[in-house]
Amino acid sequence: MRTYDIPALVAAARTGDPRAVARLISLVENDAPQTREIASALAPHTGQAPIIGITGSPGVGKSTTTAALVGAYRAQGLRVGILAVDPSSPFSGGAILGDRVRMQDHATDPGVYIRSMSSRGHLGGLAAATPQALRVLEGAGCDIIIIETVGVGQAEVEIASLADTTLVLLAPGMGDAIQAVKAGILEIADVFVVNKADRDGADNTLRDIRGMIALGAPGAGDWRPQIVKTIAAKGEGITDVVDAIARHREWLTTHGELALRRQNRAAAEIEALALTTLREKLGNLRGEAALPELAAKVASGDLDPFTAADTLLASL
Amino acid sequence: MRTYDIPALVAAARTGDPRAVARLISLVENDAPQTREIASALAPHTGQAPIIGITGSPGVGKSTTTAALVGAYRAQGLRVGILAVDPSSPFSGGAILGDRVRMQDHATDPGVYIRSMSSRGHLGGLAAATPQALRVLEGAGCDIIIIETVGVGQAEVEIASLADTTLVLLAPGMGDAIQAVKAGILEIADVFVVNKADRDGADNTLRDIRGMIALGAPGAGDWRPQIVKTIAAKGEGITDVVDAIARHREWLTTHGELALRRQNRAAAEIEALALTTLREKLGNLRGEAALPELAAKVASGDLDPFTAADTLLASL
Repeated sequence: MRTYDIPALVAAARTGDPRAVARLISLVENDAPQTREIASALAPHTGQAPIIGITGSPGVGKSTTTAALVGAYRAQGLRVGILAVDPSSPFSGGAILGDRVRMQDHATDPGVYIRSMSSRGHLGGLAAATPQALRVLEGAGCDIIIIETVGVGQAEVEIASLADTTLVLLAPGMGDAIQAVKAGILEIADVFVVNKADRDGADNTLRDIRGMIALGAPGAGDWRPQIVKTIAAKGEGITDVVDAIARHREWLTTHGELALRRQNRAAAEIEALALTTLREKLGNLRGEAALPELAAKVASGDLDPFTAADTLLASL
Repeated sequence: MRTYDIPALVAAARTGDPRAVARLISLVENDAPQTREIASALAPHTGQAPIIGITGSPGVGKSTTTAALVGAYRAQGLRVGILAVDPSSPFSGGAILGDRVRMQDHATDPGVYIRSMSSRGHLGGLAAATPQALRVLEGAGCDIIIIETVGVGQAEVEIASLADTTLVLLAPGMGDAIQAVKAGILEIADVFVVNKADRDGADNTLRDIRGMIALGAPGAGDWRPQIVKTIAAKGEGITDVVDAIARHREWLTTHGELALRRQNRAAAEIEALALTTLREKLGNLRGEAALPELAAKVASGDLDPFTAADTLLASL
């Protein structure tokens, strides 16, 4: 195992050194033993940057829209971090070609950090690593962070739930509205973006979304999802998206929702980490003498399994 | 909550009182608080009865075959317990009509106990309850126990794995051989029963199974799955099934496999119970003051999530 000088890496990342950032994300992505030290060193520098989630089916124009949004935020002088997450891909680290092509305007901009993350076999790992990767990006000085997920499945919903504000992209004529309902996307959407709005069927898509929102029947004081029409490839409507995100953030703040959401996310993260630790401890016991002996007693009827489980836990 | 005199119920069940058996199974099926006491009282009377698993797609004749097997074991003077498990059904306690009809010869026989169990919402509960229900049946004096599962999915494979000897039923012309491979049935089959062997395509089914077994390529000393042809509705081939089960049991015993399998099952059961206990403890913490406070600190960057998880675990 390679050794790393974590304090030095974190210090370098804090100055925006892209290689240090890349190294730190790789370490947390692989759940390296240093993940704990990294998280501890970064914690004081986190908890402020807005996190924007962007999700939607392939082909709706997520990368184009993200690139346009990045341009808008750069024009405001903000440093932007982008985490492109693909739960279905077994490959990691390498960006999707399409992203790179559309992102090429920003690839050499030191104010933009782009990173792809994919599942290394199991999704649980990705779900655990993503919050750490977000901390690295914020620790490295990103003022705003975009998580872009590929597809609209349960995994994407889970990852999108790490965002303060979630954008769901749709395009006309893709039957996406129905798919979004099935995937539970309606519940997580703060802003609907109907991209490629110059295409046939855009009005139908708008009507479908309005119908879904009406069915959702938000109570008084609840956020009512916004709908924005864009033609991202031409840059049209992007300012409206930026405005909708800002309005949502203002709503989150004035209603105390931002603190509440972030606290709930942190609670879920802590619980998941605690459960992982417990599971590892249990797993370690397989190699020990205690379990086979207890199992033999239960198999022969000398002991009941509940008492055996208590004994096993007492040895933790 | 109703109170039960568990020692009295167990004593009654030990004499074969069907109402006491039914009550005990209902309690363990619902994971009642008394489950622990029941398991403890029954443990000394368990660990001996052979457990036979029967699985296969709907329509292959599982219930008819089970009924015929029960007849054969009753002719040997053995008391038989039957647990019909349907993971897909949300209903519990009520037997499947078809079972009852085919089982009607045995319904009034005090040497036969028939019980249906279904998932009450979540499969984990069923997987946890089934070993306890098996203990109740053995504790009540059953000399041999049959677990019949409906369908061929992952859940059925899991439940069939509780048996010492697993029978996989197939019927001609149902494409079951392929399905069995997909569902991982090949790995768990100790005996293949080709039922309705007088139908067209029986030879194809036999050839398919032989091909699968050959591909499985068991090593020296390993059990080679047996194949038996039956026409269960006419009682044909049932003696061959009984013989194949007996041969498998002899092989299990002489190779030390029986003790090993039962010990591995007990180990898995103990681990599952221990993990459930740990999860409940974690769940209880949600209502306590510790977690929200830790989460608020993580959300604000005052604490990293790993240290927070350690603190949470320390309070267990």
